[in-house]
Amino acid sequence: MDFEFTEEQKIVVASLRSFATEELLPKYAHWDRTGEFPAEIWQKMGAMGLLGLRVPEAYGGQALDCVTAGLAIEEVARGDFNCCYGILNSSFAGDLLGKYAAPEIQAAWLPAMASGDKVVCICLTEPHCGSDAASIRARALRRGDHYVLNGEKSAITLLMAGDAGIVFAKTAPEAGAKGVSAFLVPLDLPGITRLPYADMGAKGIVRGSLFLEDVEIPAGNLIGPENGAFSRVMQTFEYTRGLIGLMCIGAAQVTLEETITYTKDRTAFGQPISKNQGVSFPIAEWFTRLTMARWHCYRTLWLRDQGLPHNSEAAMCKGFIPEICMGTIQDCMVLHGHYGYTQDFPVEQRLRDVAGQLIADGTPQIQKLIIARGLFGRDFV
Amino acid sequence: MDFEFTEEQKIVVASLRSFATEELLPKYAHWDRTGEFPAEIWQKMGAMGLLGLRVPEAYGGQALDCVTAGLAIEEVARGDFNCCYGILNSSFAGDLLGKYAAPEIQAAWLPAMASGDKVVCICLTEPHCGSDAASIRARALRRGDHYVLNGEKSAITLLMAGDAGIVFAKTAPEAGAKGVSAFLVPLDLPGITRLPYADMGAKGIVRGSLFLEDVEIPAGNLIGPENGAFSRVMQTFEYTRGLIGLMCIGAAQVTLEETITYTKDRTAFGQPISKNQGVSFPIAEWFTRLTMARWHCYRTLWLRDQGLPHNSEAAMCKGFIPEICMGTIQDCMVLHGHYGYTQDFPVEQRLRDVAGQLIADGTPQIQKLIIARGLFGRDFV
Amino acid sequence: MDFEFTEEQKIVVASLRSFATEELLPKYAHWDRTGEFPAEIWQKMGAMGLLGLRVPEAYGGQALDCVTAGLAIEEVARGDFNCCYGILNSSFAGDLLGKYAAPEIQAAWLPAMASGDKVVCICLTEPHCGSDAASIRARALRRGDHYVLNGEKSAITLLMAGDAGIVFAKTAPEAGAKGVSAFLVPLDLPGITRLPYADMGAKGIVRGSLFLEDVEIPAGNLIGPENGAFSRVMQTFEYTRGLIGLMCIGAAQVTLEETITYTKDRTAFGQPISKNQGVSFPIAEWFTRLTMARWHCYRTLWLRDQGLPHNSEAAMCKGFIPEICMGTIQDCMVLHGHYGYTQDFPVEQRLRDVAGQLIADGTPQIQKLIIARGLFGRDFV
Amino acid sequence: MDFEFTEEQKIVVASLRSFATEELLPKYAHWDRTGEFPAEIWQKMGAMGLLGLRVPEAYGGQALDCVTAGLAIEEVARGDFNCCYGILNSSFAGDLLGKYAAPEIQAAWLPAMASGDKVVCICLTEPHCGSDAASIRARALRRGDHYVLNGEKSAITLLMAGDAGIVFAKTAPEAGAKGVSAFLVPLDLPGITRLPYADMGAKGIVRGSLFLEDVEIPAGNLIGPENGAFSRVMQTFEYTRGLIGLMCIGAAQVTLEETITYTKDRTAFGQPISKNQGVSFPIAEWFTRLTMARWHCYRTLWLRDQGLPHNSEAAMCKGFIPEICMGTIQDCMVLHGHYGYTQDFPVEQRLRDVAGQLIADGTPQIQKLIIARGLFGRDFV
Repeated sequence: MDFEFTEEQKIVVASLRSFATEELLPKYAHWDRTGEFPAEIWQKMGAMGLLGLRVPEAYGGQALDCVTAGLAIEEVARGDFNCCYGILNSSFAGDLLGKYAAPEIQAAWLPAMASGDKVVCICLTEPHCGSDAASIRARALRRGDHYVLNGEKSAITLLMAGDAGIVFAKTAPEAGAKGVSAFLVPLDLPGITRLPYADMGAKGIVRGSLFLEDVEIPAGNLIGPENGAFSRVMQTFEYTRGLIGLMCIGAAQVTLEETITYTKDRTAFGQPISKNQGVSFPIAEWFTRLTMARWHCYRTLWLRDQGLPHNSEAAMCKGFIPEICMGTIQDCMVLHGHYGYTQDFPVEQRLRDVAGQLIADGTPQIQKLIIARGLFGRDFV
Repeated sequence: MDFEFTEEQKIVVASLRSFATEELLPKYAHWDRTGEFPAEIWQKMGAMGLLGLRVPEAYGGQALDCVTAGLAIEEVARGDFNCCYGILNSSFAGDLLGKYAAPEIQAAWLPAMASGDKVVCICLTEPHCGSDAASIRARALRRGDHYVLNGEKSAITLLMAGDAGIVFAKTAPEAGAKGVSAFLVPLDLPGITRLPYADMGAKGIVRGSLFLEDVEIPAGNLIGPENGAFSRVMQTFEYTRGLIGLMCIGAAQVTLEETITYTKDRTAFGQPISKNQGVSFPIAEWFTRLTMARWHCYRTLWLRDQGLPHNSEAAMCKGFIPEICMGTIQDCMVLHGHYGYTQDFPVEQRLRDVAGQLIADGTPQIQKLIIARGLFGRDFV
Repeated sequence: MDFEFTEEQKIVVASLRSFATEELLPKYAHWDRTGEFPAEIWQKMGAMGLLGLRVPEAYGGQALDCVTAGLAIEEVARGDFNCCYGILNSSFAGDLLGKYAAPEIQAAWLPAMASGDKVVCICLTEPHCGSDAASIRARALRRGDHYVLNGEKSAITLLMAGDAGIVFAKTAPEAGAKGVSAFLVPLDLPGITRLPYADMGAKGIVRGSLFLEDVEIPAGNLIGPENGAFSRVMQTFEYTRGLIGLMCIGAAQVTLEETITYTKDRTAFGQPISKNQGVSFPIAEWFTRLTMARWHCYRTLWLRDQGLPHNSEAAMCKGFIPEICMGTIQDCMVLHGHYGYTQDFPVEQRLRDVAGQLIADGTPQIQKLIIARGLFGRDFV
Repeated sequence: MDFEFTEEQKIVVASLRSFATEELLPKYAHWDRTGEFPAEIWQKMGAMGLLGLRVPEAYGGQALDCVTAGLAIEEVARGDFNCCYGILNSSFAGDLLGKYAAPEIQAAWLPAMASGDKVVCICLTEPHCGSDAASIRARALRRGDHYVLNGEKSAITLLMAGDAGIVFAKTAPEAGAKGVSAFLVPLDLPGITRLPYADMGAKGIVRGSLFLEDVEIPAGNLIGPENGAFSRVMQTFEYTRGLIGLMCIGAAQVTLEETITYTKDRTAFGQPISKNQGVSFPIAEWFTRLTMARWHCYRTLWLRDQGLPHNSEAAMCKGFIPEICMGTIQDCMVLHGHYGYTQDFPVEQRLRDVAGQLIADGTPQIQKLIIARGLFGRDFV
């Protein structure tokens, strides 16, 4: 066994720690208050290679291992949780496009995504089905050398800033999970409408709904084989679930560190409030949970890097860690006293931002189901 | 023993249930998005007697028992959590002014507060001391038939909508808790500045900081005996802590009920999602905790009505129940899936609004200290 | 509302507090180490009326209200948790026999049970079915003026000390819950065998399995109408679930009080260990949970006394409170340090004894199902 | 990074898995019921090298890395939790004696301990001080080429089976932690008395108190420099805390696996009870916590193997993991229904046995203090 970062990983962590502290954190609140998309940050992240972590080198990416991608997203989260969606999204899209898209699609989209010039979003969920992704109703009909898409996709991260979407639609409606295909759909095509959401947090990277009405795309925009998208996207979730765990941990960890500093400075009844075990013990408890959770995420991503099974491990990352991180941040908010509730400290924003990850990419219930299936066998749960 | 509401209480509950559903809930989001003070609602609450629950009848109040006040605040919270601060504040101020202020002050302020025309806020906390209220630094100097006040008071609920503040200041700075006095201070006097806070929630009833620079008030504005305010305000906290428990419970309970409806309607994998014990059991668990918590609050308020000790019981209300309610609302948000994170449902706003009560009126740490002192004796904790 | 004990209840509590402290607690360990049935205590409890709390006065009982029975069992639990089974069992049997048995059966068994001379146990569970009581397989066949019973009943509290059992058996095997009847079966009849269990705790009131092989009983031993026992026994569970909550609370509360004393006496690093918030805060937390739980039990029993619905409330008592009490006792054991693990203190025995109530009378899962049914409606869970 | 066992480690795990299942588990209950010391198992463990994991090869040991020792103890715990004390004790004693004892002492005791012929126990705690080990009162006076020991040591694991003890005593009573020395004391010397404890569990490896009255030992029995034992023993705790985490995990994990099997077999309401998410989800939750905890222990031991700091990590192992494992086992007991409470299944014994590790080697409070010191600095907690 070896629980040590490589030299390269240490350099990634150190340089991103500075980037997060010096460039991301100072503007973290700004994007929240204005609702602006942090385009300038996206450019910087692109220049630093953060948007091409999983993009093949031939297309301007870094083709890094998953563990290093995890370290990167964790560090970015210390500065700006929402900027992690750049990494998350481009990792998801990079993985899918890099493995399964036609070369022309790869050439057209991967370098632009990796540089931060274009945003590609994932359009899977529909209003009537979140967890039950095999039940989507959006339709793609082959007509000559085109597909025609109709339907509504919802809860799409980064939709309003998006240039293209990877849209999942049924090509064989009767076939359930075995009738789902994926398509690269530029978002400026005729027949496309977008509706932004007003959300609790993640305000700079606005989510939204996508309406497709007779949208025509070239047949070459099909990603992977027809009807073969479901299992591919599910496998990609196994990757992003590890990343999500780490982005939540990054946000929680930096909040914990700020709270340690705050409670050492703040006095009450004549001494630093950290002198009260009622203050220091909860921090020790959350630190413990975060520590165990962090290494679990690294291990999950390492398993993926080795090509080893990590279905349950990934479900643990997504199903438990956002909740641990919410608990950490909530307690830290309380330990800031009256100030914790104001927007003068980043803690309240982190609570609102991290809350989105309680739900996204599969609820805790779905994750527990996945873990239970692994333990009992599908027929017994 | 008797665990049944009186006929009068049942009528209060029923009429406020309609009021909350029909008049409060439809505008709950509005005040949040605009940050406007809900003045029209204050007028209505005044007309319904909700702002004079603890005001003597001679001054236009209802002089209700504490249990009924608790039922009232719980019902209002089902519609608009932030409107509860009208009840909370006027109960606090009504108690203090009704018992200890000079008749002219009572005549000048109590009827106007009870009718919803004037808002009186509580100005206790200071930037350097929250829980440790005996350490305040604001000064009140007697000069002839006036007091001159200087200092900074912070984290004042409803400050920006306030017409007067009950300001706590030191009249004997060396005497610690035994040197604190309370004053009725109109907020339009020379020397007063107010600074609003940007908070996570409670956006319509803006908190703020109050700066007093040589503010002169008549000596008759002293509330209670000089140097005698500390124990009086602490006893009033024993009352409001019970109310806070119930306002959080009201918000959590209505969220739970909405979630039951939602999960019965919402289908996944071919059946209502409520059919999954992974969905219904957490709801049963939170319902259980809310039920136990609710009756604990009623009992606390009943003890106060009887003049029986309720110091520990009140600390339990404040120290544990907001956290239970946050947990309820957070899990309900998750059970709404992707929609739970949007502002289309009230659940995210409730999470932001209730969060303020994790901190206000004494952190959980302070409450546990109070309970522990009751159990071990002051010398052993 | 009224949250005060009656004068009579106060007297019951005070006298049982002495009884528990002076007579029960000193021998609590003895019955555990020897496995002897505490017959002498049963006699005393009989003489004090504790075994006839729910027995009609005409048959030597007290016919007390359920709340007072709850107070009684809570006090007894402070001295000897296992002696509570005398109250629990005789309340269950007293309720069933008192309401539904033939006068001769009542006359033969109720006075003897109330005096502590005879023990009547409840024989419901079978090896293949615990929670699913409608699926029992024991058979009772009418043959002339007799019934002939066959089958195996398991997990019967007090079986080895029992003189009779209330045996549930199918009289209409195809009718599910509507084919269950109850019978008073003396345990010295031919065809009866008993097998004692070696359990983790509750060692003096040995559980066991009952084997019935062509056991003949007079038809008059039928309790209530043929095929009508299921709903009757389920309603009686609603009563005993409230009692079980309180017996667990009694054991946990006295342990908490002992731990307060211990941690005030015990010093480390130069001061009483109670001075550490890491010690006093968990105690404050458990005390809070116990307080809320206790009044919930009183309210449940009060609802029963009033003839009001209390199905969910009773399920909350059983489904949540034993777990809270286990948590209390476990943490108290730890706060005793190295001694907590020895049998020199009663805390380890309480952990073992209370553990049985995590399971008995319906697991937490069943209780949550009951609560969820109440919230969602049967068709939606 | 590398999260894979070495080939050697895989062989250790596989062979110990068989040993645990085939030889340990079948007799696990026997030692509990009889209270006999499992001497035959000790011999076998000696023959397999399990009692010399940390003993230098020159003295018949294996001098294995700490991670492999952790894997070994985890596997043994799956069969017999109490046999882990053989590994734990011999690792502790092996570490101390192997590093610091005189060659003659090493030669006399290490091979015999490694072979299972002799048991060496650790005698640190005293009745008045558990966590506060610097406050011990036992005295060792140098008299010529001997030391004379007086005092009482308590809560000594394996004392009644012990052949020698490593006794900690003050050689400089005024010097606090800097006045503590360690001695190898054969337990058959004049002046020695032993008193066994009756404990909740761990019944075959009886704990006890050791009374030393003018016990003379040769000066060469001093282990390490005079007055230098405190920091050495504290550093050894950092090792054993990792082992303790894993032995608890081994017991919890095997219980979880047995429960999965049981709930797949057991039917209620016409289907395996595992089909209820109320059954399968808690198991998924505990499995998740155990998985995260397990790798945290491996990492802690790996840090030790590398000579890297692991003070906080070790405190996390001891301060959190036994509680997680107790929770696992308790819920598993409940999921076994009425049978879970009997001694027919090993689950109740595991609950009793693991409970001892909630306390031993430092309470959770002490561990949280250690973690908090690491986070805040000694002066701020």
